Amino acid sequence: MLYFSNDYSYGAHPEVLKHLTETSMVAAAGYGEDIFCIRAKEKIREAIGNEKAEIFFLTGGTQTNQVVINSLLQKHQGVISAHTGHIATHEAGAIEFTGNKVLPIRHNGGKISSADVKDYLETFYNDENHPHMVYPGMVYISFPSEYGTIYYKDELASLHNVCKQYQIPLYIDGARLGYGLMAQDSDLTLKDIAENCDVFYIGATKVGALCGEAVVFTKSNVPDCFITLIKKHGALLSKGRLLGVQFEALFTDELYLKISRQALERASYLRKGLKEKGYRFFVENMTNQIFIIIDNEKLKQLQKKVVVSFWEKYDARHSVIRLATCWATEKEDIDELLKIM
Amino acid sequence: MLYFSNDYSYGAHPEVLKHLTETSMVAAAGYGEDIFCIRAKEKIREAIGNEKAEIFFLTGGTQTNQVVINSLLQKHQGVISAHTGHIATHEAGAIEFTGNKVLPIRHNGGKISSADVKDYLETFYNDENHPHMVYPGMVYISFPSEYGTIYYKDELASLHNVCKQYQIPLYIDGARLGYGLMAQDSDLTLKDIAENCDVFYIGATKVGALCGEAVVFTKSNVPDCFITLIKKHGALLSKGRLLGVQFEALFTDELYLKISRQALERASYLRKGLKEKGYRFFVENMTNQIFIIIDNEKLKQLQKKVVVSFWEKYDARHSVIRLATCWATEKEDIDELLKIM
Amino acid sequence: MLYFSNDYSYGAHPEVLKHLTETSMVAAAGYGEDIFCIRAKEKIREAIGNEKAEIFFLTGGTQTNQVVINSLLQKHQGVISAHTGHIATHEAGAIEFTGNKVLPIRHNGGKISSADVKDYLETFYNDENHPHMVYPGMVYISFPSEYGTIYYKDELASLHNVCKQYQIPLYIDGARLGYGLMAQDSDLTLKDIAENCDVFYIGATKVGALCGEAVVFTKSNVPDCFITLIKKHGALLSKGRLLGVQFEALFTDELYLKISRQALERASYLRKGLKEKGYRFFVENMTNQIFIIIDNEKLKQLQKKVVVSFWEKYDARHSVIRLATCWATEKEDIDELLKIM
Amino acid sequence: MLYFSNDYSYGAHPEVLKHLTETSMVAAAGYGEDIFCIRAKEKIREAIGNEKAEIFFLTGGTQTNQVVINSLLQKHQGVISAHTGHIATHEAGAIEFTGNKVLPIRHNGGKISSADVKDYLETFYNDENHPHMVYPGMVYISFPSEYGTIYYKDELASLHNVCKQYQIPLYIDGARLGYGLMAQDSDLTLKDIAENCDVFYIGATKVGALCGEAVVFTKSNVPDCFITLIKKHGALLSKGRLLGVQFEALFTDELYLKISRQALERASYLRKGLKEKGYRFFVENMTNQIFIIIDNEKLKQLQKKVVVSFWEKYDARHSVIRLATCWATEKEDIDELLKIM
Repeated sequence: MLYFSNDYSYGAHPEVLKHLTETSMVAAAGYGEDIFCIRAKEKIREAIGNEKAEIFFLTGGTQTNQVVINSLLQKHQGVISAHTGHIATHEAGAIEFTGNKVLPIRHNGGKISSADVKDYLETFYNDENHPHMVYPGMVYISFPSEYGTIYYKDELASLHNVCKQYQIPLYIDGARLGYGLMAQDSDLTLKDIAENCDVFYIGATKVGALCGEAVVFTKSNVPDCFITLIKKHGALLSKGRLLGVQFEALFTDELYLKISRQALERASYLRKGLKEKGYRFFVENMTNQIFIIIDNEKLKQLQKKVVVSFWEKYDARHSVIRLATCWATEKEDIDELLKIM
Repeated sequence: MLYFSNDYSYGAHPEVLKHLTETSMVAAAGYGEDIFCIRAKEKIREAIGNEKAEIFFLTGGTQTNQVVINSLLQKHQGVISAHTGHIATHEAGAIEFTGNKVLPIRHNGGKISSADVKDYLETFYNDENHPHMVYPGMVYISFPSEYGTIYYKDELASLHNVCKQYQIPLYIDGARLGYGLMAQDSDLTLKDIAENCDVFYIGATKVGALCGEAVVFTKSNVPDCFITLIKKHGALLSKGRLLGVQFEALFTDELYLKISRQALERASYLRKGLKEKGYRFFVENMTNQIFIIIDNEKLKQLQKKVVVSFWEKYDARHSVIRLATCWATEKEDIDELLKIM
Repeated sequence: MLYFSNDYSYGAHPEVLKHLTETSMVAAAGYGEDIFCIRAKEKIREAIGNEKAEIFFLTGGTQTNQVVINSLLQKHQGVISAHTGHIATHEAGAIEFTGNKVLPIRHNGGKISSADVKDYLETFYNDENHPHMVYPGMVYISFPSEYGTIYYKDELASLHNVCKQYQIPLYIDGARLGYGLMAQDSDLTLKDIAENCDVFYIGATKVGALCGEAVVFTKSNVPDCFITLIKKHGALLSKGRLLGVQFEALFTDELYLKISRQALERASYLRKGLKEKGYRFFVENMTNQIFIIIDNEKLKQLQKKVVVSFWEKYDARHSVIRLATCWATEKEDIDELLKIM
Repeated sequence: MLYFSNDYSYGAHPEVLKHLTETSMVAAAGYGEDIFCIRAKEKIREAIGNEKAEIFFLTGGTQTNQVVINSLLQKHQGVISAHTGHIATHEAGAIEFTGNKVLPIRHNGGKISSADVKDYLETFYNDENHPHMVYPGMVYISFPSEYGTIYYKDELASLHNVCKQYQIPLYIDGARLGYGLMAQDSDLTLKDIAENCDVFYIGATKVGALCGEAVVFTKSNVPDCFITLIKKHGALLSKGRLLGVQFEALFTDELYLKISRQALERASYLRKGLKEKGYRFFVENMTNQIFIIIDNEKLKQLQKKVVVSFWEKYDARHSVIRLATCWATEKEDIDELLKIM
């Protein structure tokens, strides 16, 4: 079988595994206070150009969203998100489970606009009944979005400005951050991301690691006793080194960005092949997720040889599917896939 | 520095790392539906002698306790635990955070007695005000306990009987399960554990893995939609393989038990050395955690060369400290430690 | 000032106050086990034609929604509601606070259709990713809706059928139940309501009482230890008699329905007057809430003499306001209001 | 039957009912913004001698505890309470349900000492593992305690000093505040209470009202958007006037204190009678709750004619029961009770 359903079908990048292996018998402190975490944080601070950034390592995306949102929101607040945001749809209610309402707004290809956010906030405060409603206390976006689209620099700055005006944090879910930053049409760097939000995470589970997300607070805005809050969520690893070691490898010699770029080159190659074969794209984007419209019969045939992600019904006879590349995708596999399709 | 503070100071057993490395480029399904998880579960079922056991892999101990307890309890129920139980003391309120009260009862060296549990349950139901109180809906024990002591077969069977009588599950926190089972004075096997409770977990974070705990339901008692509940807790890894691969290695050729036994041999060696040097033991036990009483001045000197765990104040001039061995502890390090002490 | 902003501006119906006063010095059991609660429940069972209905008294609407929804849902489930449902908008996140997600669907004048509910459920179960999503575990409707519209018998039966097909309860928020049942165009009786859902509440705070809502379970479906769950929500009154006494008065000689009918006659009278004066209605309905479109300048003038509810912006120069009648509305006040408008 | 089981067996004081009746047809704003609430707050501010106190009316004791504790605690904190505290025992886990751990400490007749609180706090911060534990973030006491005992001025001041030293609030549950203040041995006034804590509530459900507790914040320490938080707990009455009207009556001409004093005179009378009959007291106290030790056979006889509260088993042949007086207790009933006993 060929695997193109997602970007988490493989283990870890060889450099990551190598570093895990070579550091294994070095004794170290627990709970993220080890030397590997310390060094990894230093490397990330350099990469984002912010010496004072405070960094915490967590294990997975939903966990990270739950911990960050629950810890940053005040008790009367909820979080604004696109209807299609991961927290609004595919986290099994993890945000609500810990007491916080997701406040969905409309999206365009998975992205929300600063105008819509501003309108939401204005309308809320103009409504005399707003004390009976959940206060919007944060804006959540994913970069790239759930549809593989990316925000451009002016869009991100504009969103951040609205947030600053209303004194609420902008939070970026970077589960696939590398695959967004390295996209051909991206005008954002890691540094830009760090500057244009209040907290974000650098996702590694989908970009070279076995697991791991690095939460970055850039505005001296770490919640009080955040380690205790992480523990309370059941999210504090006793062997925090597992995360530190991996991030140390990924942020040495720009490995994180390099393997992201490679995945995108593979995606471009696949996209080009699909275009030549006449496939229509459901969303136009340049990141590692490709959404195409496919005939249902054709899909059935395809699924005998390829694992793909069914995304949604398109019409009575067609479906939308996702094909994804990642740091581990081989050119040969793409060639074979294109032969079959 | 010598590290004797705990059993999570090292990475993973070489066999675990080797298996992670050699399987890394095999594509597999996400969210724990991969071939490695499937095979690991099969091996665990064999090891516990229960073909129908249902197994789920989670990442850490507090997370596992939170997920299991919250998912199994009914909404009017709480969980009985020793005052000293990990869930009652050192999980930063993770159990209460998700809405469940811990109902503490007295302990003896970290263990609770079936008589005390029975008394609690009887008193509760005899109290005419009990509808205004949290119903005891589960019994939680740790094996070994937080003081390194273990339950014996008759004690465990007796606890389980009380639970059966009141139709509430007995849950065993096996964060250090191997170090309990392989103890010289233990009369319990993995099979006995599986038979004498309703749900337990096999801890691997402290026994050879980078991370990972295997929750085992033995009585066809998996909560409805448990995968969704795990996700809701932020505890579902997209690369579930990380856990499956490690447990596959640990349950091949009894590696889990073998490395546990070795850690205990090292603990015996250390214990013997300490006894010879005249140290007094705060708790008598035969597992991998050793609790000794030490002069405060002596402790200060020691800490310049050895990382140990301060446990509690003993008297004005003495402290209780914990020294722990693990699968990775070298005999040479113990010799060096004994020289210093 | 004239008060037309809502239906909770006055105290209680004289019969209710009289009964509170005349029973005050009769000693009775606490926590809803008193003779008044017992008699009130009996009267309600008669009124709904269901001898086996199980009834509980709570204090307010949001509290009732939180208690019922949280107690009935399983842990992986959320509740389907109109986007405009009270639980989705004006309960400050009370449903999410206790861990449950509201799953909003589109509405028509505040009502949801059985076709849309069915479509939601079908789509959910057809989505292969649904284990990562919140399961729809209940359907919530309000009768009358937040826009004063009502469901007709066939619509309600149809909604209930979809729920039965998917084995999830249909829950009716009857904060203004009387004002819906007595509407001129209503083809539903209390008995029909009881038959065509799984749980509903009879709202009295807005219909003659100082406070009080009667939750009615009609399908032997009371959650385990429901009294304990009510207590856990902080919703169990020690003097439960306060609620029992009031409901006893309201369900004696059909007082509840009679005062509802009178409020609707007053609403008709007001509606007629507004129509004659040329006001446009934002929603066509026949219950006690009247939504009209009004010029902003006119509104400013009006608010000097009348308390009304601003509902929403209509266009740059007009607003939607709500005028409500209740059991206490005097014809003279309506005449005065119409003079001013 | 005679009712001596508790202090919530009757309706409301005639003055309270009268005021409810005479104000009923005065239209007023909803959600506690009515003129009655405004006036009642003013009267309470006068009574406690604090012009700036911020006051909110809630419906019941457990609700009040849940709302206040959940709203004031930070997310990593729990609340210190006596093992026997109402929140620790008889609130069905309401505090934990909303995510907060109760941290129990030992008591003496239901009271906790400042020394024990200080010791708890010192030990906590000295423990190097405290980031893995729930931070003590508030001290909860009840006045009078669950055993009818009261704190004296120096004890209260001392507790408050420890709290100030650690910058955590002291919260007084005053469900029976009047019955504590008016006790013969009390050296505290309402003013003293207000000065010697950070937040407290004046309980009226048990002191003359149908329902109602007044939460008083005395240190400009109302949580942000507290009305929204109250709503989120399902605790905001639309007819907030119900509470305002009652408190207005109770705080006119010191009615609250007068009826408390009368209940205590009745309790003295009963206590004297019991002493003369040779009954032993389980707790020595001078408030409205009397705890006596009674022969089990005698108790059975008694219960045929009197409703009493079984408190706990004393020994094989004796029980502890509670007899309570309240504002409504008649001297004649006490005489009859004494005849029977």
